[in-house]
Amino acid sequence: MPSLVGVAVVGAVSLVGEALVEVLEERGFPLSELHLLDSGEGIGHSVPFKGRNLRTGDADRFDFTRVQLVFLVGASDMAARCRVSAKAAGCRVIDLSATVAVEQQPCLVPEVNGGRVEAISDCRCFSSPLPESVALAIALAPIQQQLDLQRVTVTACLPVSSRGSAGVKELARQTSELLNARPLEPRVFGRQMAFNMLAQVEELDGAGHADQERRVAAELRQLLDLPKLRVAATFIQVPVFFGESLVVSLLGGAEADMQSLTAALDAAPGIELVEAGDYPTAVEDAVGQDVIHVGRVRQGTSDPREVNLWIVSDNVRKGAALNAVQSGELLIKDYL
Amino acid sequence: MPSLVGVAVVGAVSLVGEALVEVLEERGFPLSELHLLDSGEGIGHSVPFKGRNLRTGDADRFDFTRVQLVFLVGASDMAARCRVSAKAAGCRVIDLSATVAVEQQPCLVPEVNGGRVEAISDCRCFSSPLPESVALAIALAPIQQQLDLQRVTVTACLPVSSRGSAGVKELARQTSELLNARPLEPRVFGRQMAFNMLAQVEELDGAGHADQERRVAAELRQLLDLPKLRVAATFIQVPVFFGESLVVSLLGGAEADMQSLTAALDAAPGIELVEAGDYPTAVEDAVGQDVIHVGRVRQGTSDPREVNLWIVSDNVRKGAALNAVQSGELLIKDYL
Repeated sequence: MPSLVGVAVVGAVSLVGEALVEVLEERGFPLSELHLLDSGEGIGHSVPFKGRNLRTGDADRFDFTRVQLVFLVGASDMAARCRVSAKAAGCRVIDLSATVAVEQQPCLVPEVNGGRVEAISDCRCFSSPLPESVALAIALAPIQQQLDLQRVTVTACLPVSSRGSAGVKELARQTSELLNARPLEPRVFGRQMAFNMLAQVEELDGAGHADQERRVAAELRQLLDLPKLRVAATFIQVPVFFGESLVVSLLGGAEADMQSLTAALDAAPGIELVEAGDYPTAVEDAVGQDVIHVGRVRQGTSDPREVNLWIVSDNVRKGAALNAVQSGELLIKDYL
Repeated sequence: MPSLVGVAVVGAVSLVGEALVEVLEERGFPLSELHLLDSGEGIGHSVPFKGRNLRTGDADRFDFTRVQLVFLVGASDMAARCRVSAKAAGCRVIDLSATVAVEQQPCLVPEVNGGRVEAISDCRCFSSPLPESVALAIALAPIQQQLDLQRVTVTACLPVSSRGSAGVKELARQTSELLNARPLEPRVFGRQMAFNMLAQVEELDGAGHADQERRVAAELRQLLDLPKLRVAATFIQVPVFFGESLVVSLLGGAEADMQSLTAALDAAPGIELVEAGDYPTAVEDAVGQDVIHVGRVRQGTSDPREVNLWIVSDNVRKGAALNAVQSGELLIKDYL
């Protein structure tokens, strides 16, 4: 009989935290107990799980020796403190905070580098990378070799849910105000978000780059095992509630063979390839799905080494919660 | 005393046509008479101009020998027929239809190649290029030489006004239906446009490219006089009413000197450069303006030859109506 593992979710009161608990239930994760943790106002919430209601506890007062696997959700001080405690207690950790450098904590996307986990089995802590890295790595892994991939240029269109429920509420509020011709008072984004596009998703560093833009480059280089891959990423914020859209242009070392390339995408795990004549959208295809959707795959018009494509993915579910749970399943294999 | 020219606008009953008439009035275009023309239901409309109301006439019954300058708005059969009649009547033509190949009819963006018009003065017909080409050419012209520009990768986020007033009404209708939890019935775009991103703006050809994506590449090569420039363009449709946003990644032949590059952008005509720490948006900065706004200018993180930037522009006014009127001013210089 397989044994079960105790699981804790830190940052449970959040869009990603709630999705993670749902995915744990849906996939019948082999857990003996589930502890939902948060801090401040997040303590004492009631969260449904397998027909019961679990109450969220205080993450800072939790004894991590009670569990074997910990999910860290959100880039909070709480998550940072719990990372230390969980590691000290010998837990395996899936970290969704996107704050630890990739050199210090390897990224895991089961479809991409799941087979290599055992090679780094001394590492008990993995990052579940940015949702954009998850989607890109899943789409590029099956074609990187064939294409001799050299360069990735990506426009990542992030929905407001990338800023949690506050972002979702803000877009709804602004939209309603504008439709009713009331004066607009931007709060969460500091700008008009409804019916507008924002050039950046967070404060920039001195050189003009966002953390997430730098991080997606580092994560892709690690996940695809291409240390010299050149990545130009622009993250923009768009007036969409859920689901992200990625506009991707790839440059390979040799002329792209489009037929074998689409065949490779079609056969790859985690991808639903949408054929020419149709295309997927975030809202209609990606949201709530366990796969990413890839469409508009086409060769460049002025360079046969260039391949362009479009990806949509559920940033909360596929890009964060599901990837973390799938990673957790890999990490606890030796318990079962 | 300068003489005046007779002017006709074909396709006057449209977002761009109306903006064009406004711009003619605002700039005090030296016209002796103005004929507003359209077809079908567009005939008999009343359009304000200089305190009077002009009535739109039937384009197909118009005698083009009555005018010296003709603006063709919209990619209609009417515009195609009027192109023939206007040329036969010896008119100078500014063609906004984006249907004639760039090899057959040169593009004109006054800030970019206005100085070269006289070199092609036997040509009396010019295309006012796609709004996206106007914005890109204005932004790239001042830096192309310094950068030894080799490659342009662009995600063009088109507002629904790129589909005329039908597109604008559709986004408003869909948004209101969704906010009121009524069932959605997509019409103009064939998809949910509200709170969603569409991967393409029109039907694609057999190789997966949109006409506008191919055209922006050809127009840029001509406008910048860079026949070997490689262009990867993706046009997407976004839930914004007015104003387009362009995410641009450039690759040069040598390391970019960011200081002199931003100085060149800052000094260039038609550009408002937004400094680091701030960024422009379509709705807040571009709409109603006679310049494009450029922001987020930054060097690549993994390639010093790479430069990334963000452009917002009023697709109806700056990208179409104003560019056409400025072009008209150049074309009639020898009359004045």
